[in-house]
Amino acid sequence: MKTSPIKGTRDYLPTEAELRDSLQNIIANTYKKAGYERITTPILEAAENLDKSDGGENLNLIFKVLKRGKKLENALENSPTENSLSDMGLRYDLTLPLSRYYAANKENLVTPFKVIQMDRVYRAERPQKGRLREFMQCDIDIIGNPDSDAETDLILTTAKALKAIGLDKFTIKLNDRRILKAIFTYSGFDDSYFDKISIAFDKLDKIGMDGVKEELEEIGLPSDPISKFLSIFKSESLSLEDVRHIEGCTEYADRLLGIINTVNAITDNAYELKFTPSLVRGQGYYTGTIFEVAVDGYSGAVAGGGRYDNLIGKFLKQDIPAVGFSIGFERIFGILSEDENLKMADKPKKIALFFDDDNMKDAFKYADTLRETMNVSLIKRPKKLGKYLNKIENAGFDGFKVYGEEGDIKLFD
Amino acid sequence: MKTSPIKGTRDYLPTEAELRDSLQNIIANTYKKAGYERITTPILEAAENLDKSDGGENLNLIFKVLKRGKKLENALENSPTENSLSDMGLRYDLTLPLSRYYAANKENLVTPFKVIQMDRVYRAERPQKGRLREFMQCDIDIIGNPDSDAETDLILTTAKALKAIGLDKFTIKLNDRRILKAIFTYSGFDDSYFDKISIAFDKLDKIGMDGVKEELEEIGLPSDPISKFLSIFKSESLSLEDVRHIEGCTEYADRLLGIINTVNAITDNAYELKFTPSLVRGQGYYTGTIFEVAVDGYSGAVAGGGRYDNLIGKFLKQDIPAVGFSIGFERIFGILSEDENLKMADKPKKIALFFDDDNMKDAFKYADTLRETMNVSLIKRPKKLGKYLNKIENAGFDGFKVYGEEGDIKLFD
Repeated sequence: MKTSPIKGTRDYLPTEAELRDSLQNIIANTYKKAGYERITTPILEAAENLDKSDGGENLNLIFKVLKRGKKLENALENSPTENSLSDMGLRYDLTLPLSRYYAANKENLVTPFKVIQMDRVYRAERPQKGRLREFMQCDIDIIGNPDSDAETDLILTTAKALKAIGLDKFTIKLNDRRILKAIFTYSGFDDSYFDKISIAFDKLDKIGMDGVKEELEEIGLPSDPISKFLSIFKSESLSLEDVRHIEGCTEYADRLLGIINTVNAITDNAYELKFTPSLVRGQGYYTGTIFEVAVDGYSGAVAGGGRYDNLIGKFLKQDIPAVGFSIGFERIFGILSEDENLKMADKPKKIALFFDDDNMKDAFKYADTLRETMNVSLIKRPKKLGKYLNKIENAGFDGFKVYGEEGDIKLFD
Repeated sequence: MKTSPIKGTRDYLPTEAELRDSLQNIIANTYKKAGYERITTPILEAAENLDKSDGGENLNLIFKVLKRGKKLENALENSPTENSLSDMGLRYDLTLPLSRYYAANKENLVTPFKVIQMDRVYRAERPQKGRLREFMQCDIDIIGNPDSDAETDLILTTAKALKAIGLDKFTIKLNDRRILKAIFTYSGFDDSYFDKISIAFDKLDKIGMDGVKEELEEIGLPSDPISKFLSIFKSESLSLEDVRHIEGCTEYADRLLGIINTVNAITDNAYELKFTPSLVRGQGYYTGTIFEVAVDGYSGAVAGGGRYDNLIGKFLKQDIPAVGFSIGFERIFGILSEDENLKMADKPKKIALFFDDDNMKDAFKYADTLRETMNVSLIKRPKKLGKYLNKIENAGFDGFKVYGEEGDIKLFD
């Protein structure tokens, strides 16, 4: 039998699990203080829901679950395909399950619904990319509020959570899908190419404007719109003030400007909020504001999100405005695992209490008196105590006592 | 798209999720006080590991995950079967992943390894049984300790966890698989029938001795061993004292007696420990002690476990003694959801702070000053405040304040 975990999944050692627990508790408490409430949804979702969810690239990365019993037999007998063999899959994010959840339970929820989800998601990434296939996301969402105070609340709360776990230097990048679309339209591109243009433009940071130009040409777009589009971005520092003068952008540029100014006023400019016209975000379901957090000194994003005003409408007859911000926990865990000064929630000391066969009952009773203030592991006294003490010290124990011997609990240095 | 969750899975409303979190925190803290350490393992396991894991009936209930990409294409082209189409599955318990984990990480773990796992498992139960297919288990295990103090530690700690969440009246049933086997052998049954006899005998509570006799006859067993077997149990209150006089049982009966007397001495008989000769437990991997907890007034078990000294050996060249006790969290949650007096961990009050467009920034800043001591949700003042207050009170808010109006925070009665 195989001892290593499935490719792209991880076992966590006790010290790692403790750090993960501690970080998750700090994040959850920050969210709760801001009035968000935790829910949980199943990891399994109907194949139909996943397939129709506008998840962009992620739809190619779904782990599908095989049908069972007679349904499987039937599928196997009738020229089986991936679709005919599977009736459910593992969720690739927490936004789709939340949208389904809201549609199913809205009669029992208060609006605006401010909600926490901290849970595992699954993506069948190619293992050579070094990405995890099972990973944790920490999401907050506000459902039922179309106004920009929802974005403000999410940004403030996510930034607080990042600061609370010890990440001090980060930039929040913002854009609006409607600005992107208006610029595409204004440049003269046809609607049907917007997705492909977005994907090319999303790479601006990596490949520069020349690279973007090449990609747009490869798509086969006519040269006039390409020229017009590139001329808008001739300076990479296109500002919201510039953008608001472009046809169709004014309303959305003003909205973004309002969010940025409000957050800056509330936090007294505690972190940078940066309009980033090339920010696209992968999910197809975003309809308005999109945001992302970059930590100084690390590439890629540690958090991301946006407004998805049409997703819940796929489950209901009416659209419900919604916006969310998700912390990529594995990224955070990766960064903080390397940090010597990381913040751990206060935790009680842990000691070993050694007993012998003849004093076991008394030692067990005595342990309970200590447990008011510390964690106590009862262990039969090993023959080579000295060597064993080294081991448990390395494993994170804070001290020990041999039951029946005089003296206080001995703490390791 | 489908709004209801997949059959056998559940959405949890905020108040339910809060109770679940609270109960899980109480259980986890009880485990940690007793010196156990938390780990996490992936929900996905290799199909090979699951299939060879001696999980008894559960092996028929595994959700299998479809292969992807070229591997799937290959499988589809070559007379596909359930096995050829799937390379991994969702774990059906936490014991198999723990065994794999210990084998993979033992160099980095201290022995005895006292470990907590609180996480989701999956079983494709028939939905008509009303059982969940995705559910939570709270396990503690001790790996590397063959002695009965391991069982004592697990029983004491599990009982403490149950008491801590408010379950006061329960009985812990105990048996030993080696006693069962010795009685089968002594009765004259052939080894090859032990599994079938166990399954029949496990039903004693439901069908009585006459029912067990019928089932044994239906298996086609000879009548002499059946008579001898039944004569041993002619009284349903067969005691450990009786059992220790049966050939091959003495050692194991004494071991169980030792555990029961030790736990009773330490707890001063705080709960009943009951030798239960018909206790079998479903998993094939148990090798010694088995236990189960029944709550007064509820049928079925709320917790169960046992010794599995050979399971880790399937991953390593050597056997490693191991024993675990698992709380079936959904059962607990079901019982306590109905309890008016249930114990919730202390939690801060939650209020709504209403703002208007013109005082939003100040309201957001003011909220942060309140968040030292309470959870504060910022909400734009609704037009019909009175009606809205009723809604949020029903949703679990403790009070509210309209920012800018004089007076203290108003708490709901």
